[in-house]
Amino acid sequence: MNERVREILGNYASDSPGTRTNLARLLNHGRLGGTGRLVILPVDQGFEHGPARSFAANPAGYDPRSHFELALAAGCNAYAAPLGFLEAGAAEFAGEIPLILKLNNSDSLSTGEPCSAVTGSVDDALRLGCVAIGFTIYPASNLRNTMYEQIRALGEEAKRKGLAVVVWSYPRGSALSKEGETAIDVVAYAAQIACQLAAHVVKVKLPTAHIEQAAAKKVYDKERIPIATLAERVRHVVQSAFNGRRIVIFSGGEAKDTASILDEVRAIRDGGGFGSIIGRNSFQRPRKEAIDFLQTVMDIYAGKSK
Amino acid sequence: MNERVREILGNYASDSPGTRTNLARLLNHGRLGGTGRLVILPVDQGFEHGPARSFAANPAGYDPRSHFELALAAGCNAYAAPLGFLEAGAAEFAGEIPLILKLNNSDSLSTGEPCSAVTGSVDDALRLGCVAIGFTIYPASNLRNTMYEQIRALGEEAKRKGLAVVVWSYPRGSALSKEGETAIDVVAYAAQIACQLAAHVVKVKLPTAHIEQAAAKKVYDKERIPIATLAERVRHVVQSAFNGRRIVIFSGGEAKDTASILDEVRAIRDGGGFGSIIGRNSFQRPRKEAIDFLQTVMDIYAGKSK
Amino acid sequence: MNERVREILGNYASDSPGTRTNLARLLNHGRLGGTGRLVILPVDQGFEHGPARSFAANPAGYDPRSHFELALAAGCNAYAAPLGFLEAGAAEFAGEIPLILKLNNSDSLSTGEPCSAVTGSVDDALRLGCVAIGFTIYPASNLRNTMYEQIRALGEEAKRKGLAVVVWSYPRGSALSKEGETAIDVVAYAAQIACQLAAHVVKVKLPTAHIEQAAAKKVYDKERIPIATLAERVRHVVQSAFNGRRIVIFSGGEAKDTASILDEVRAIRDGGGFGSIIGRNSFQRPRKEAIDFLQTVMDIYAGKSK
Amino acid sequence: MNERVREILGNYASDSPGTRTNLARLLNHGRLGGTGRLVILPVDQGFEHGPARSFAANPAGYDPRSHFELALAAGCNAYAAPLGFLEAGAAEFAGEIPLILKLNNSDSLSTGEPCSAVTGSVDDALRLGCVAIGFTIYPASNLRNTMYEQIRALGEEAKRKGLAVVVWSYPRGSALSKEGETAIDVVAYAAQIACQLAAHVVKVKLPTAHIEQAAAKKVYDKERIPIATLAERVRHVVQSAFNGRRIVIFSGGEAKDTASILDEVRAIRDGGGFGSIIGRNSFQRPRKEAIDFLQTVMDIYAGKSK
Amino acid sequence: MNERVREILGNYASDSPGTRTNLARLLNHGRLGGTGRLVILPVDQGFEHGPARSFAANPAGYDPRSHFELALAAGCNAYAAPLGFLEAGAAEFAGEIPLILKLNNSDSLSTGEPCSAVTGSVDDALRLGCVAIGFTIYPASNLRNTMYEQIRALGEEAKRKGLAVVVWSYPRGSALSKEGETAIDVVAYAAQIACQLAAHVVKVKLPTAHIEQAAAKKVYDKERIPIATLAERVRHVVQSAFNGRRIVIFSGGEAKDTASILDEVRAIRDGGGFGSIIGRNSFQRPRKEAIDFLQTVMDIYAGKSK
Repeated sequence: MNERVREILGNYASDSPGTRTNLARLLNHGRLGGTGRLVILPVDQGFEHGPARSFAANPAGYDPRSHFELALAAGCNAYAAPLGFLEAGAAEFAGEIPLILKLNNSDSLSTGEPCSAVTGSVDDALRLGCVAIGFTIYPASNLRNTMYEQIRALGEEAKRKGLAVVVWSYPRGSALSKEGETAIDVVAYAAQIACQLAAHVVKVKLPTAHIEQAAAKKVYDKERIPIATLAERVRHVVQSAFNGRRIVIFSGGEAKDTASILDEVRAIRDGGGFGSIIGRNSFQRPRKEAIDFLQTVMDIYAGKSK
Repeated sequence: MNERVREILGNYASDSPGTRTNLARLLNHGRLGGTGRLVILPVDQGFEHGPARSFAANPAGYDPRSHFELALAAGCNAYAAPLGFLEAGAAEFAGEIPLILKLNNSDSLSTGEPCSAVTGSVDDALRLGCVAIGFTIYPASNLRNTMYEQIRALGEEAKRKGLAVVVWSYPRGSALSKEGETAIDVVAYAAQIACQLAAHVVKVKLPTAHIEQAAAKKVYDKERIPIATLAERVRHVVQSAFNGRRIVIFSGGEAKDTASILDEVRAIRDGGGFGSIIGRNSFQRPRKEAIDFLQTVMDIYAGKSK
Repeated sequence: MNERVREILGNYASDSPGTRTNLARLLNHGRLGGTGRLVILPVDQGFEHGPARSFAANPAGYDPRSHFELALAAGCNAYAAPLGFLEAGAAEFAGEIPLILKLNNSDSLSTGEPCSAVTGSVDDALRLGCVAIGFTIYPASNLRNTMYEQIRALGEEAKRKGLAVVVWSYPRGSALSKEGETAIDVVAYAAQIACQLAAHVVKVKLPTAHIEQAAAKKVYDKERIPIATLAERVRHVVQSAFNGRRIVIFSGGEAKDTASILDEVRAIRDGGGFGSIIGRNSFQRPRKEAIDFLQTVMDIYAGKSK
Repeated sequence: MNERVREILGNYASDSPGTRTNLARLLNHGRLGGTGRLVILPVDQGFEHGPARSFAANPAGYDPRSHFELALAAGCNAYAAPLGFLEAGAAEFAGEIPLILKLNNSDSLSTGEPCSAVTGSVDDALRLGCVAIGFTIYPASNLRNTMYEQIRALGEEAKRKGLAVVVWSYPRGSALSKEGETAIDVVAYAAQIACQLAAHVVKVKLPTAHIEQAAAKKVYDKERIPIATLAERVRHVVQSAFNGRRIVIFSGGEAKDTASILDEVRAIRDGGGFGSIIGRNSFQRPRKEAIDFLQTVMDIYAGKSK
Repeated sequence: MNERVREILGNYASDSPGTRTNLARLLNHGRLGGTGRLVILPVDQGFEHGPARSFAANPAGYDPRSHFELALAAGCNAYAAPLGFLEAGAAEFAGEIPLILKLNNSDSLSTGEPCSAVTGSVDDALRLGCVAIGFTIYPASNLRNTMYEQIRALGEEAKRKGLAVVVWSYPRGSALSKEGETAIDVVAYAAQIACQLAAHVVKVKLPTAHIEQAAAKKVYDKERIPIATLAERVRHVVQSAFNGRRIVIFSGGEAKDTASILDEVRAIRDGGGFGSIIGRNSFQRPRKEAIDFLQTVMDIYAGKSK
């Protein structure tokens, strides 16, 4: 096994061999297998944004199998989705690509304080042959404690059963401005919370240079924490995730132009981030274009491309 | 995924995607990955025969890590052992090779009707990141019902948790002569019983041309079932394992000379057997020799060597 | 729904709608659907007698799918088999024919007082979509209480989960002569015991005119119970099964010539038996011949043929 | 409520209101309702002796409904039977007569030390609307501890769920002569054991004047315990059942002539026994005769007839 | 058993014999036993309205035994109360009158959206010898889902344990005007909801001719549903309760003059209602007067009085 993968697994020495085996499967699969970098394909937008907003741009995406196929063809490390999408392909693609079952999800049909519903179980993940469970928390929501307590219990169960735990940590809720959701202090804090909740892999949004909290701003100014460039901000977030001893990956966010995304990927790479989780920016493209795009991203992480 | 592996997985359509994923991991790993053939390294002899009888010939074998290393270096599909041996290496080798936890074992310190003790659990297998549980039954023992009922419960649990089930089926006990233990009718029956007990993978001994049961002999004679050559007998055993729809592998048995073993491997290959499980004949050799030997066996299965 | 089926279901008024639904599925499927008569294909001989004795005469039978196909093509009411055989086809044939999971089985490799091993669970039956569990008891075995207590627990669970319960009641053991196993008093008693154990469907062997128990002989003589013809004996067995308020079917026993079997079927029909369960006499014939044979049997039950 | 019934219920003050409610239902139903005396119809002979020996004399008895009807028409306090017989009528006769589910039963097809098999559960009794569970113990069997421990657990569960507990206490087994089974010292001892096992209602056989145990004989002689007449012996058994604070009823035993039975009933009445449980001597008679007979018995208990 | 009771029990054929037995006990007890009509005494006002408002008018009511005695003396079919009141008399009155344990209750000390607290369990009901559990739902409360989910679980458990389920269905809450609580469309809807929640017995308030919902009003007008007289409205409610296949009884409501209540009872009888549940209007009267009053009500139902 690759030395970098061994080194990363060494950061999880408190975990069972089963959980480490599944982390290894995640790190060793696909085009980036063995590099210590990851690109994951997530498709939860059908649940989160509705089908037309998610799949009309590339109608192949209405078919659940198309996402397994895209992840496989592009050589992603894993494919992550809610229960329904995974059940609709797990048998046909058994053993072909590591799967992450997203255990909670929100729809866009209601308002109020953000809190996802638990829509799957750890036993579902075992039954479907997944390597990990995924779970979203919304720090800054008034309902955050509900989510923290759910992931506490689900995470404990997943680890007992040899699975890994991936946490999407997205600050959101009445305690935060829209701009604050991606403020550097808030994103770094979100990464720390997910690590403290004992996630193995943390997913956050790319941070802006904005600082949301007054109390934090004083420290950032006083200590002159470098946050001017995106790479610097990524480095700070990775530092905030137990100084690089937990895997942190970044979401692509809204669909945008290719050049911008590739610039972001270079910044993640240069800042020491572990990789990307790219949904809409991949599966909303036609198949061939999507594969080319994802492989370009991977080549940047692998150092094969600038 | 390789077509042959897909075809084999197709025989397990009643199983969950999780179990099929673990069968795929078994079939896709190592030097024979993707060929539909398997060579597994089992090391339960320390428990079954005692340490000196097992490891004195090649003292490296006293160290549990040596067996993980041998299986990895030789490119075996999996490594199978009791709880103690797996716990002593599963963390260090997490994710590097599929593991099978042997859930029951016998020692050689007592006499009486044969019946192994259950020495591990399905949850142990999850915790250690295994792809399958292993279990030994002794048809013809007066205590067979105890073992059948244990594997019934353990197999149901393993399947519910997404693992595969490997059954060692060794007829033995007061109802059988020593010669009868490897009689063709008895070995074929042992394979059938393991399949009816719903094993995914069945391990039996290579059969002789002897026929033990009078009632069976009439049928073999009347129907002129071909059992003259070892390849013919292997074919009959595979047929008896749901007509090749269950994976059947053969044990090497006692240590013997290399040429004999390679002849046996050719017969297994030609008779449509799925592979070998080779313990003493591999780990009792010095490391380099063991690797060469195992890879020669694999090359025969892969068709790279006669 | 057919009046005769409604009438039979009316005898099970203490059971849940779920169990009655599954009894209705059994009674309404196939060529005899709706007549109140049944022909069931059982294939447990691979486990009970070994593969060659069971399948060499018609090697298609080594393949588990062949039995699903035979039961379907012939129009049987159901197919009954152990866990391994059902798992090897339940997915492919899902919803095509009612299935009965035989929860205990014996092999022929050992001796001693007869007692089958429990080799499947009620949850397995649910998972495989079965309509009923099957269970064998050996009244007259010294181990009968073990079996009675197992079916008590399994039957209660099956009923709670909406399944039907089929009991094979075969007197056998050290308390009985070989001839006594099919004695009219013993077979009638075996039917009664299965009914008292709360089976929904009872399977017994065809009885001879022999009377085994001295205490019973006095009564048969004194009350002049008619047992001279096979039809009379069938009638007495049906009477002993709660006066026809429980479904009683008869096994074909050893392979024999067609004319003899058809005569037996006529006697079962004329004596008010509910049908036959025919294994070796069907699947050991070539496919076409087996279908013709089974359909001839069904036509006799349906009154389409003498 | 009748004073005598209140007085009897007062002896069960440690029991829950639910259990006392069910004892009251037993005492208040039928022709003897409210008198503190009971006549119960038990039909377990189909299981215990086989169908022909039980029902051929009056073939109506093959139909399970006939026994519900007889118990109702005669005005018995309750009907007791194994699971199969109760399931075959409990829905049709729901709420018409108190039911007792006999939770263990023996057949006559095997030999060996006596021990009934558990063939029903407390939840079955709830599901069928029973007022009590019934259980047979064989003091003097080498397997008595098995039975004592089973009734301990079943009795505890029945009481927790508000049911009453009826124990058939029949000394039998290798430790006792045939004559000893109904010896006065043994029957009194059997009644005591059932009471100590916390039965609410105890059923024993009518005792003879024989004394089986040497140690007991000394005391009977020394203390001049009166046991010459049947009424005296009944009085001694009732005394042995917590001095009349537990309900003791007596079984009719084998079929015999009517006059003898009525004499026995008078002795039970005069000795302070609580009533009779009469199986074969009632249901083996034609319906009209059986009703007349049972009502004559009840009239004796009610004091309406000598 | 009375034909009308058999006919009513026939409407509950999906239920176990145990549940049907307890429904039969309810229908067969007391002065109206066997008529298919019921008068039940409920005393939950101590909890719901406080002791002085409930019992000061007739201080005997402070003593829990007085209500058992009233129900018995008047010949009611059953007595219903919360856990405390039942525990305070169930032992003394064991077996004398069917009991219904009200499993949830509200006090009058708080405001806010109506939702009763669960104050008893199904096992309490078994322990106390009850025939049924009672449960109140408040359709139109914002907390209705809490109550619907509680009765779903409690009802499932009660049925599994052989008890019957009585639901008080009282529309109430912020979604409804005060007048709307007894509007004919709302009461009919409340009866339907209770039936759909699988109650065996439904208790609603007597409806007025008011129609609350605009959408319903259109249909009532268009289809000219007759609701002018109270008897017509009762008939419509009974129709709405599965066309008379579920038992519907009506509450007396607030204390009022005797003549008015008797007129209401005549309307319930003429409209095909199954009976009354009368609390304050009975137990707040002096004992003798209360008995006379309740028996007058029963005579109207029995047709002995106009």
